[in-house]
Amino acid sequence: MLLTILYIIGITAEAMSGALAAGRYKMDLFGVMFIALVTAIGGGSIRDVLFGHYPLTWVANPHYVIIICVASILTTRIASVMTRLESLFLFLDSLGLVLFSIIGAEVARKMDYGFVLIVSSAVITGVFGGILRDIFCNRIPLVFQKELYAGVAMITASLYYILIQYFGVEVLIASIITLICGVILRLLAIYYKIGLPVFNYEGKQK
Amino acid sequence: MLLTILYIIGITAEAMSGALAAGRYKMDLFGVMFIALVTAIGGGSIRDVLFGHYPLTWVANPHYVIIICVASILTTRIASVMTRLESLFLFLDSLGLVLFSIIGAEVARKMDYGFVLIVSSAVITGVFGGILRDIFCNRIPLVFQKELYAGVAMITASLYYILIQYFGVEVLIASIITLICGVILRLLAIYYKIGLPVFNYEGKQK
Amino acid sequence: MLLTILYIIGITAEAMSGALAAGRYKMDLFGVMFIALVTAIGGGSIRDVLFGHYPLTWVANPHYVIIICVASILTTRIASVMTRLESLFLFLDSLGLVLFSIIGAEVARKMDYGFVLIVSSAVITGVFGGILRDIFCNRIPLVFQKELYAGVAMITASLYYILIQYFGVEVLIASIITLICGVILRLLAIYYKIGLPVFNYEGKQK
Repeated sequence: MLLTILYIIGITAEAMSGALAAGRYKMDLFGVMFIALVTAIGGGSIRDVLFGHYPLTWVANPHYVIIICVASILTTRIASVMTRLESLFLFLDSLGLVLFSIIGAEVARKMDYGFVLIVSSAVITGVFGGILRDIFCNRIPLVFQKELYAGVAMITASLYYILIQYFGVEVLIASIITLICGVILRLLAIYYKIGLPVFNYEGKQK
Repeated sequence: MLLTILYIIGITAEAMSGALAAGRYKMDLFGVMFIALVTAIGGGSIRDVLFGHYPLTWVANPHYVIIICVASILTTRIASVMTRLESLFLFLDSLGLVLFSIIGAEVARKMDYGFVLIVSSAVITGVFGGILRDIFCNRIPLVFQKELYAGVAMITASLYYILIQYFGVEVLIASIITLICGVILRLLAIYYKIGLPVFNYEGKQK
Repeated sequence: MLLTILYIIGITAEAMSGALAAGRYKMDLFGVMFIALVTAIGGGSIRDVLFGHYPLTWVANPHYVIIICVASILTTRIASVMTRLESLFLFLDSLGLVLFSIIGAEVARKMDYGFVLIVSSAVITGVFGGILRDIFCNRIPLVFQKELYAGVAMITASLYYILIQYFGVEVLIASIITLICGVILRLLAIYYKIGLPVFNYEGKQK
């Protein structure tokens, strides 16, 4: 129940982030809805397709599609207000990232995958939506250059895995602990601009 | 029979549209064939992968791959002629869009999906090929900014659904009615430059 | 055994090529690993998803993910050395291309597909990783404009098919013959700058 409510908050926040990106490229309403959908459910869809994990979440629950479309269209109406709500927005986006990562980790864990695939699944679920958003807007994905974002997904998934596998913590409690730690980590990374080292290679084009 | 002929006309028109786009970016023959394939069968492939609907159309019918490759190579020979045939080309492209949308709607209907997924399937089938074409050419998809294009796919699918579900019209007759209405709508949208409202957001980069 | 060793060499070479591309766009370590993974196992993943051929190679063998991540991070340390090793690098990249094409052809052959799908599978496996690398770096895929690259995959797959289907050559021997011929062809294409004809279309944007 709690997880479903959090999930809806997560896809709503991602949908709004997608809609704003679409607005920056002067897209029409279809573009806005498309980018919102890709941002909100693209990561989970890629994960499920790669793992052969059918049906996809939004195919089993088509009302998520409607929630995302409505949220994205609403965003076009209240965009000016959102500039003032930026802190709230950053918080919701962090919540979405961490929550999606936990969901991804749990999907892989349920399929009896090991540590590498659990972390991979968490990163794909948490981060790929934003990557697709940027690809469809024709820009280099922010997540490849920004402060700790994918790193949060990796650390979140590792913590989740360790709590359950080595300390035998229950799934629900592990989810809540991981959620809180992950969001705090992400907010700290934003505040202190912590990032992964950058690789700058000036070699000639292959 | 009729639908197969129309389908081949549709993929041929999309293949030519893809080949011309590749030519604008000075691609070699492989690039031309690749972009043509992605444009013509990319939308249906994405739909089938998302729905777990195997085998894909071109895997079951590999001769479609050959038709598309031949059409794209022919396009490189007769490109200069095509400028004069632009009206015909716009008509064939509209036919392809509407036909692909109907096929997408029908695939989802046969899988017992509801309204939201039927419309989603129509839009993915009708529009995603052109989106992929533009992504692989490294430009923002035209369909996010142009006159009513994806909107035609949505309206086409809705009409198709209503005819079958609420009026009990037979699939073939519903297809033909929807095809004619959809193409007319698309041509009107081109002629009168009808489009969806545009969302222009000047907020700073997230 | 030999094929596994060659495969690991192939994904390592592709991972390094991906890491260098990421470095040119000043990506952080996550970007480097992501681009390396996409370059090395993206082509095979797309093939398996399109053919419904589960589980994907890296899901069944997650240690490949680790090999690629380690190779990509090492690349960021030794990038300056690699400029001097360019010939070796081109050789390994050619080996990767031809080997991936053979693997792709073999996967399709084992699924009892015909000639068209075998060649398609070879091209997707050999070339799509590089295409995805370029898409995620936001540039037009090199393979659409460069000297004979995808053509090598097509010729390799055709030779492989003919050897097995018409001359009854054993799979292992056919693989070795095709590998040698394909790598030589690729190196000749680089040396003599042989390419497919380019289609340059100046028509106005559709």
